[in-house]
Amino acid sequence: MLYCVQMEVRIPHDLDPSHADTLKADEKARAQELQRAGKWVHLWRVAGRYANISVFDVTDHDELHTILSSLPLFPFMDIAVTPLARHPSAISPSIAPRST
Amino acid sequence: MLYCVQMEVRIPHDLDPSHADTLKADEKARAQELQRAGKWVHLWRVAGRYANISVFDVTDHDELHTILSSLPLFPFMDIAVTPLARHPSAISPSIAPRST
Amino acid sequence: MLYCVQMEVRIPHDLDPSHADTLKADEKARAQELQRAGKWVHLWRVAGRYANISVFDVTDHDELHTILSSLPLFPFMDIAVTPLARHPSAISPSIAPRST
Amino acid sequence: MLYCVQMEVRIPHDLDPSHADTLKADEKARAQELQRAGKWVHLWRVAGRYANISVFDVTDHDELHTILSSLPLFPFMDIAVTPLARHPSAISPSIAPRST
Amino acid sequence: MLYCVQMEVRIPHDLDPSHADTLKADEKARAQELQRAGKWVHLWRVAGRYANISVFDVTDHDELHTILSSLPLFPFMDIAVTPLARHPSAISPSIAPRST
Amino acid sequence: MLYCVQMEVRIPHDLDPSHADTLKADEKARAQELQRAGKWVHLWRVAGRYANISVFDVTDHDELHTILSSLPLFPFMDIAVTPLARHPSAISPSIAPRST
Amino acid sequence: MLYCVQMEVRIPHDLDPSHADTLKADEKARAQELQRAGKWVHLWRVAGRYANISVFDVTDHDELHTILSSLPLFPFMDIAVTPLARHPSAISPSIAPRST
Amino acid sequence: MLYCVQMEVRIPHDLDPSHADTLKADEKARAQELQRAGKWVHLWRVAGRYANISVFDVTDHDELHTILSSLPLFPFMDIAVTPLARHPSAISPSIAPRST
Amino acid sequence: MLYCVQMEVRIPHDLDPSHADTLKADEKARAQELQRAGKWVHLWRVAGRYANISVFDVTDHDELHTILSSLPLFPFMDIAVTPLARHPSAISPSIAPRST
Amino acid sequence: MLYCVQMEVRIPHDLDPSHADTLKADEKARAQELQRAGKWVHLWRVAGRYANISVFDVTDHDELHTILSSLPLFPFMDIAVTPLARHPSAISPSIAPRST
Repeated sequence: MLYCVQMEVRIPHDLDPSHADTLKADEKARAQELQRAGKWVHLWRVAGRYANISVFDVTDHDELHTILSSLPLFPFMDIAVTPLARHPSAISPSIAPRST
Repeated sequence: MLYCVQMEVRIPHDLDPSHADTLKADEKARAQELQRAGKWVHLWRVAGRYANISVFDVTDHDELHTILSSLPLFPFMDIAVTPLARHPSAISPSIAPRST
Repeated sequence: MLYCVQMEVRIPHDLDPSHADTLKADEKARAQELQRAGKWVHLWRVAGRYANISVFDVTDHDELHTILSSLPLFPFMDIAVTPLARHPSAISPSIAPRST
Repeated sequence: MLYCVQMEVRIPHDLDPSHADTLKADEKARAQELQRAGKWVHLWRVAGRYANISVFDVTDHDELHTILSSLPLFPFMDIAVTPLARHPSAISPSIAPRST
Repeated sequence: MLYCVQMEVRIPHDLDPSHADTLKADEKARAQELQRAGKWVHLWRVAGRYANISVFDVTDHDELHTILSSLPLFPFMDIAVTPLARHPSAISPSIAPRST
Repeated sequence: MLYCVQMEVRIPHDLDPSHADTLKADEKARAQELQRAGKWVHLWRVAGRYANISVFDVTDHDELHTILSSLPLFPFMDIAVTPLARHPSAISPSIAPRST
Repeated sequence: MLYCVQMEVRIPHDLDPSHADTLKADEKARAQELQRAGKWVHLWRVAGRYANISVFDVTDHDELHTILSSLPLFPFMDIAVTPLARHPSAISPSIAPRST
Repeated sequence: MLYCVQMEVRIPHDLDPSHADTLKADEKARAQELQRAGKWVHLWRVAGRYANISVFDVTDHDELHTILSSLPLFPFMDIAVTPLARHPSAISPSIAPRST
Repeated sequence: MLYCVQMEVRIPHDLDPSHADTLKADEKARAQELQRAGKWVHLWRVAGRYANISVFDVTDHDELHTILSSLPLFPFMDIAVTPLARHPSAISPSIAPRST
Repeated sequence: MLYCVQMEVRIPHDLDPSHADTLKADEKARAQELQRAGKWVHLWRVAGRYANISVFDVTDHDELHTILSSLPLFPFMDIAVTPLARHPSAISPSIAPRST
């Protein structure tokens, strides 16, 4: 099932910089792992903000929450989740194939 | 270039029903035409609302506005546009290929 | 899967009263049918408002949208959907059994 | 009487981690105690957020406030309370039996 | 139990004036009847607005909803309900006696 | 003259606890003093929040501001003031007698 | 006593134009009468909006409400009232004399 | 030219108290200097809040910004500026004479 | 002096279409006249909305209000005005020359 | 392509002052460099706020994000981006020439 997930990151300015760097590196690694696993199917940067608009393809709400709440930057993110249904005017499956 | 476009449709209850039906049919035909043209690359229904979350892939802001403002239901939609940039953690081009 | 659905009803004052009555009666019948089918598992009135807080138990986002968008009062409702996951502190399955 | 209670948790990043862990453990124990006592009758996680949607069944406003304000994480929660009345379309008592 | 109820009245300008007058007269009569019955214990006008801040003393959420939803102007009011608990610093019962 | 005053208290988590306790004790003493003086005529707890809804009966805006701004917790409160006028449907003076 | 009053006017487009003109003329006459009476002590137009920011000097909340609620355009205005107290840094009485 | 300026002051609780006192004293001196210079023509306290509603009479936007941004408490204020035009119903110049 | 003006147009669906067309044509003619006069110095379409972001260069607030309030579509626009001052980091006069 | 960018700066009061000064100096230098490069084509101060309204002329969303996210004050800014299209009533190219 598909979910639109909008994440806004707010890292406190007094967080230890090396700790912040570690979190960001871990976040990137985890994001790529989830993309390769076909769970995080779209990841776009919101131009001008430390934020993204993403689409996840997971089994159910529990899997979505498990994934999001274990992201390294989760404690510093404001997240909005929108469940996506098939649109009657869509000409193709609601998500493009991720591989040939 | 990619844009996330969120459309919320509010058709006045006192609009002539047959006119409303015509607008909806025209909207659907136009949406499918734009999808086939590769302009409207994602179209999802927001579960529980007369709304969608879409991604457009167009040349520039002018083309986006021309497309959106000529949608049959445009006068009855509240539209929010978010420019999407490439995300540094994305492992693939920012939009999945729509065909093999 | 469970969804919290909050519905706020706003019937235009110039809607034909008998049409409004028909819609309300149809809405009630449909709501009860969905409760009996085990889809609409909780339905509470928000005290002081023409609104409800509900919990639906359906297969996926598509089924939820199909159900909500076909409610007789759907054109006059403002609906917010929240996907509900299992809470780690919950001592029982995330929804109480509805019988026995 | 039933109340819908929505809790959003925001633990300051500079809170002592072991203190935070203690608070979370205490919160979990207290939440389970209240569930077993039949006061906290539903507890769902909002997917993607450190938040929950709950239903409490208590004697009156005073008992509700006493319970909520003594939760270990209360100082770090933003809480919204909605009194729930019986819905005329509900086919069963406004809360499902929790056992047998 | 006490509830703070804030009502904002918005009568559509195209409502039949004599019908509106009837509704207002009925509303006034009903408000006074409820005050005399000790249910509507405070009724204040918000200076400068067609609105009031009230306190109701009723048995439970159901009685509150029954009262509010049957007010003649209910279809034209936006209502916010806040459950009031006893305050630990209050020196008297949470509502002053209304007689003697 | 009557004012509805809604106070939301937000004590920073890193305020010295003994200082916070002193402030709270002072606030309680001052609140009771003002109640006994007939200035703070209603004081209710908002169920589930560190907040209150109050009614003050003071000579004018200046007295109200002097009282509120000298409350011990004033620096940590978000306060909204609503001037209350007599309601044409009220059957009694706009505030119930507090004694006898 | 002084009150800052912000009025936003929204005249429905389907109001009879001659009726609207009458209301506007009456509003202007009444506004000038209240200014001459020393009640409506400041009246400024918000640049670019059909709105004003005003200061009233009246005896109490009741007089303010009586004045505002009897303005000809009252049914079409959204009004916000802010009670103004003397500022400790003000070097003159809180309102400048309106005549030599 | 006239501007309505609304200032909300939020001094962080962990600011050094003597520094805060110095800033407040400087702010008061500066406010009085600007009033004597005829720039800050009205200064009212918002009852119940650490806030003011003011009217400035300055040459242009640049002078307004220079004045506001150099106020000692500027870093701790949230400021909203509204340009004020002459109101067609005002019977006197849009600002009362401040002397004579 | 410069002002950023954001206009959102909402034409009621039941406005007579030929009247709406006349208003739009008049609006366009007036907008171009004001541009040629050097008053309306920038006019951009907000992509995807019936809205614009503009910059006006006028003598004072009164001239701005006179211009905006006499626009043919003024009754159907929601307008926000922001006074623009010179930015200390700007390398050129705050508005580019409009002609060589 | 043109983007309207609104930046609100919030520098934490406990940031090291010399570090803040360095950031501001760097920000100014970078802003001027971008203006000279023709990327940052308008830069206005919002009167009364530590904020600006700007227009950028860049190749695409990616370039805009790269520029904004590398501004020295980016971590302390709240940024809103609006894509600007050509307005049908604009009499000149959507941006005035910056030289000659």
